[in-house]
Amino acid sequence: MRAAYYVGDGKFEVADADIEEPAAGQVQVAVSYTGICGTDLHIMLGHMDHRVTRPGVIGHEMSGRIAAVGPEVDGWSVGDAVTVMPLSWCGSCPVCLAGHEHICQHLDFIGIDSTGSMQTRWNVPAKVLVALPDGLSLRDAALVEPTAVAVHDVGRGEVREGDKVVVVGGGPVGLLIAVVARARGAEVLVAEVDAFRRDIADRLGFVVLDPLSADLGDHVETWTDGAGATVAFEVSGTQPGLTAAMAVLAARGRLVVVGIHAEQRQMDLHRIFWRELSIVGARVYRRDDFEEAVRLLDSGVIPADALISAVEPLESADQAFARLAAGGGVMKVLVDCRAGG
Amino acid sequence: MRAAYYVGDGKFEVADADIEEPAAGQVQVAVSYTGICGTDLHIMLGHMDHRVTRPGVIGHEMSGRIAAVGPEVDGWSVGDAVTVMPLSWCGSCPVCLAGHEHICQHLDFIGIDSTGSMQTRWNVPAKVLVALPDGLSLRDAALVEPTAVAVHDVGRGEVREGDKVVVVGGGPVGLLIAVVARARGAEVLVAEVDAFRRDIADRLGFVVLDPLSADLGDHVETWTDGAGATVAFEVSGTQPGLTAAMAVLAARGRLVVVGIHAEQRQMDLHRIFWRELSIVGARVYRRDDFEEAVRLLDSGVIPADALISAVEPLESADQAFARLAAGGGVMKVLVDCRAGG
Repeated sequence: MRAAYYVGDGKFEVADADIEEPAAGQVQVAVSYTGICGTDLHIMLGHMDHRVTRPGVIGHEMSGRIAAVGPEVDGWSVGDAVTVMPLSWCGSCPVCLAGHEHICQHLDFIGIDSTGSMQTRWNVPAKVLVALPDGLSLRDAALVEPTAVAVHDVGRGEVREGDKVVVVGGGPVGLLIAVVARARGAEVLVAEVDAFRRDIADRLGFVVLDPLSADLGDHVETWTDGAGATVAFEVSGTQPGLTAAMAVLAARGRLVVVGIHAEQRQMDLHRIFWRELSIVGARVYRRDDFEEAVRLLDSGVIPADALISAVEPLESADQAFARLAAGGGVMKVLVDCRAGG
Repeated sequence: MRAAYYVGDGKFEVADADIEEPAAGQVQVAVSYTGICGTDLHIMLGHMDHRVTRPGVIGHEMSGRIAAVGPEVDGWSVGDAVTVMPLSWCGSCPVCLAGHEHICQHLDFIGIDSTGSMQTRWNVPAKVLVALPDGLSLRDAALVEPTAVAVHDVGRGEVREGDKVVVVGGGPVGLLIAVVARARGAEVLVAEVDAFRRDIADRLGFVVLDPLSADLGDHVETWTDGAGATVAFEVSGTQPGLTAAMAVLAARGRLVVVGIHAEQRQMDLHRIFWRELSIVGARVYRRDDFEEAVRLLDSGVIPADALISAVEPLESADQAFARLAAGGGVMKVLVDCRAGG
């Protein structure tokens, strides 16, 4: 088998590895595709060297088929099409005991904190498997994980039929949020600074705005007849994005914090008070979000063709990352992990 | 009749005024007591000169009895004990149309934006009246309005039986929040820098902490067996108070923004994301909050004696404000507006 190892300093090395038999409770997945997430890019750029093992295999957005079933595993067979919900929780910390296992204090995010899917064979606990329907292509199924993020985010935003929703940041997660919110019956505006991404959002039928060349607040004021947006999603991870997302909200509006803000941010607390806003954090997903994501992909709601910019072979993992790191002209990049792919 | 006029420059002048007959739809209230709110203090200190009329009568926490009933008013009689929910909304802005009249875009906060109750007779629209039960003293009933604030805040925090609640800021509103949250079945910790206020909170049976001499985060960590607080109320209006309130929250915890933050604040967005926190604004109250406040006072849940530090005659309105402005050794101050009071 082959595996792409992150070795530090922004580099990946693709090398042979021994195939290990799945242990008790595990299955071995023949990986088909692994998507590259923004977090993977942060890893490649060295921002998470304190957290990841080097050399190590990363990757957590994936699809594949079961190649072998370990002892003490029921309900799965060789050949089953699967994806993985890459979370493993302790079950005993206060967060788990309160029922929020997905944000466990000791969460193992598989593919970041432990070995990931950017390899041809991957042994994982059977409990993290999610079944894929027959009709869903394995290429498109690599989008299940980011779609589950979007489903969770839209759920945290309590988006309802008729809502006017603003998504600040039109990358893969931002557009998936826009698509899921629209599927809930909302009208969606996407604010994005990159012309390539704005063009995709436009072709998907969203109201699109470049916040650098037009005033988002004024635009939303008109778009909503003075009411403001019911829900805004902050997916840019930037101070201007946060400020803009706050400024568009209606009274009792909800801001969902999706993007990563590594630094302290300036917030207008008086506006939160005055308009009785809610600012809500949304992180990863729960099992039902994942299963809903599978249904949305299977039913064709998710425009996979528009979101997948490129598929690169595993042997060229380095180039796949470089393409994303260069920025511009790219949305989601998949790595083809099929043996000989 | 007599009225205390705010004339600017931190000064009040008490003077004679003519009694005007109540207009159609109005009643005339013989005011018994008017409480001095933190907002009234801001007015006295000149912070709100852009918003208030000078000379003008302020005051919106009150109790009294109906002295005259104007034309076209049904259901009210001379002698009825009443308080006023001092909000008047437009009914036609997007916020009102969305059902959030209490934070109407054109809200008239009676006693701030229009004439208030710091006078012996006060004409108000009958629609803002709230009936008081026979057994409730008119002195204690002057606490209905701030209690309604607390009821609304606790509602926005969705406080439930068994919750561990932290209130940052133990002034009148902070302690009322603590009392209402406890009445909902929560355990409550009050963090307050002023020793006099801490002493009152302690005598009311709350866990009390001086955040300047002990680490609130460490304390709450122990108090909650590592889980963190379910709900925190930011009532201090300060950056350290906000930072402390954020730091104590459990996963999925809720921070209710009650205090006024005139300046931009530093916020840890990553923590909101990581723990899936909610930050929720809470402003004034709705009719059901007001009616619940009357019930809580009538049933003795609200410790009025502990909260009312002083009652000053209307003729000494200046001194009543000066006492509050000096800070320390005082909780709620009432102005006795009874004719000859």
